[in-house]
Amino acid sequence: MTDPVELTANLIRCPSVTPVEGGALVLLQRELADAGFECTRVDRGDVSNLFARWGQKGHTRSFGFNGHTDVVPVGDEAAWTTLPFGAEIRDGVMYGRGATDMKSGVAAFVAAAIDFVRDTPPDGAVILTITGDEEGDALDGTVALLDHMDATQERMSECLVGEPTCPNTMGEMIKIGRRGSMTAWFTVTGVQGHSAYPHRAKNPLPAMVRLMDRLASHELDQGSDHFDASTLAVVTIDAGNPATNVIPAQCTGTVNIRFNDLHSGTSLSDWLKSEADAVAEAFGVDIEIRIKISGESFLTPPGPLSDLVAQAVEAETGVCPGLSTTGGTSDARFIKSHCPVVEFGLVGRTMHQVDECVEVAQIQQLKMIYTRILTDYFA
Amino acid sequence: MTDPVELTANLIRCPSVTPVEGGALVLLQRELADAGFECTRVDRGDVSNLFARWGQKGHTRSFGFNGHTDVVPVGDEAAWTTLPFGAEIRDGVMYGRGATDMKSGVAAFVAAAIDFVRDTPPDGAVILTITGDEEGDALDGTVALLDHMDATQERMSECLVGEPTCPNTMGEMIKIGRRGSMTAWFTVTGVQGHSAYPHRAKNPLPAMVRLMDRLASHELDQGSDHFDASTLAVVTIDAGNPATNVIPAQCTGTVNIRFNDLHSGTSLSDWLKSEADAVAEAFGVDIEIRIKISGESFLTPPGPLSDLVAQAVEAETGVCPGLSTTGGTSDARFIKSHCPVVEFGLVGRTMHQVDECVEVAQIQQLKMIYTRILTDYFA
Repeated sequence: MTDPVELTANLIRCPSVTPVEGGALVLLQRELADAGFECTRVDRGDVSNLFARWGQKGHTRSFGFNGHTDVVPVGDEAAWTTLPFGAEIRDGVMYGRGATDMKSGVAAFVAAAIDFVRDTPPDGAVILTITGDEEGDALDGTVALLDHMDATQERMSECLVGEPTCPNTMGEMIKIGRRGSMTAWFTVTGVQGHSAYPHRAKNPLPAMVRLMDRLASHELDQGSDHFDASTLAVVTIDAGNPATNVIPAQCTGTVNIRFNDLHSGTSLSDWLKSEADAVAEAFGVDIEIRIKISGESFLTPPGPLSDLVAQAVEAETGVCPGLSTTGGTSDARFIKSHCPVVEFGLVGRTMHQVDECVEVAQIQQLKMIYTRILTDYFA
Repeated sequence: MTDPVELTANLIRCPSVTPVEGGALVLLQRELADAGFECTRVDRGDVSNLFARWGQKGHTRSFGFNGHTDVVPVGDEAAWTTLPFGAEIRDGVMYGRGATDMKSGVAAFVAAAIDFVRDTPPDGAVILTITGDEEGDALDGTVALLDHMDATQERMSECLVGEPTCPNTMGEMIKIGRRGSMTAWFTVTGVQGHSAYPHRAKNPLPAMVRLMDRLASHELDQGSDHFDASTLAVVTIDAGNPATNVIPAQCTGTVNIRFNDLHSGTSLSDWLKSEADAVAEAFGVDIEIRIKISGESFLTPPGPLSDLVAQAVEAETGVCPGLSTTGGTSDARFIKSHCPVVEFGLVGRTMHQVDECVEVAQIQQLKMIYTRILTDYFA
């Protein structure tokens, strides 16, 4: 039996702060190769990634797991009560950077996969895609693994991302999609002048506040079947003019939008541009927009994959998990173009914090859930 | 005959950048004392001022002139084509800091007053109040002179401020009042949070943009009999938040208002506060306001004083002057509480600029106008 707790501890002891490999992928590759997995290091730029497959390439039943071994920086090291890369266990709780996000998740699915293919070799394939950059730009991480799979005709039929998904209680939440995210930077340009003679100047600020008021008070939607309502946050407006007798020539403003499946980055960009154009014309100023779409919304509708995972979770924990689309982005946003994808993992409460930690019993429980998913899938 | 051109040149050669006296008031005191004026230096803080009276104290006909000998800094000295304190005359034009603002004006009314009381001693008094700080904070300048006059029962019946008032052509504009000026600084405080979860935060920016939109799009008035419409300029809004995934806790915004006699600093402060309160309540945020009233609007309604000045201007220049309330503040804002006050002086086009200059002939002309005002007043 492969011990996921020991494997988690060994991974935590690899100081793999993005994009440093830190020995984590080397360790996993050795374990997986020993268990009969075909392993390929897929490195791109300064990022290291690992592709591993047990079973026949191109099999129609190829169950995939995805995860990352990179971690965020330790932050204020003096504030930690343990060594951040020590993996110390106190009262049944293991401490260390990556304890929940997500070396425990990787260890659980690696341990489950190794034991499963050894004990009950399936008619199909088990594919593991493990990246060294999920926490950073993520341009050369899971994307590089998927590019590699495209180039080599590797394919997952379904994929489970092992990110921590439970807010408080083990088993309570499976993620079946995520909202999209985009940012728009506006620059309004007028003509500088003296506050006493506004008619001789062209103040950009009244146009900016009208535009931002229109954007902030617009209801994008009221939510959809599987998503909360889309939101728009004005995150900053700046003119930086200290002189009360001067009308500034220019000001900038930024909005961040989290959007559900009723919108796309393109539809929202079009809306932002039309609002900016209307205000620019009404106020006789120039408005420039720069837009960055960090990710489109996506959804794997409730169905066979989420049922499979939910049944395994309930069988092992007694908790009936909810299907959610809340939270920030994850690499599932890339995988959704490859195959159906859902996410399930541990309680994420301490992720990115000082004294990040995980209950040892939950690592064992997570391995059992992942094992049951494989067993049921190939049954 | 006292030559106002020579006196202007001698004053320019005193480098009296606020609050430095630079010899200017010493020079004037000597000239005036020699001519029979009772002179008192009224210094307060680091500011020097000169009070001078010819004739009987407390006379019901006490005509006053007001002006300043301090000047703004020379700015980029290398950009000047003459010495900034050299008073060089080229092609009938005298160059130097203070040439128009307003050593020429002071020289013209001092020369006019000296010659007038010598040649046709009036039944009444001529009072000159000359300050060394009009360009700075102006807290210890004309205000100190007026305090001194209150304390010593000195009184002007009317006052003419010799500031440059003509935009382009000698004689075209008398100022009979000024708009008031005030600035309001708003601080909106909410609760910081993550852009993805705006309902858990309380974004101060939507409240700020709504408030600023309400203020900027409100028509204060359409002008009054002697004033242009009041104006409000949003001069800056700042949140200073570089993180697109963060909703800031606080932002600030500033408006500057120039207001006519349909408003007061108090009435506008009340309006700003009620607008802020309404927005704060609607958005559930806290809005603090700090207000500074730099000056109330004031008006010396068209009447005997403006008629007196206008008739003298037209007689000497052939130009019929308009009565205006445009422009920034001047010390007339203090004098208006003491007696009726109007302003008339040279063409101010080059004031505060490099190569500030004045046509020599206009200094002579200004002395003749001021002399005619005295003659007509005491006739």
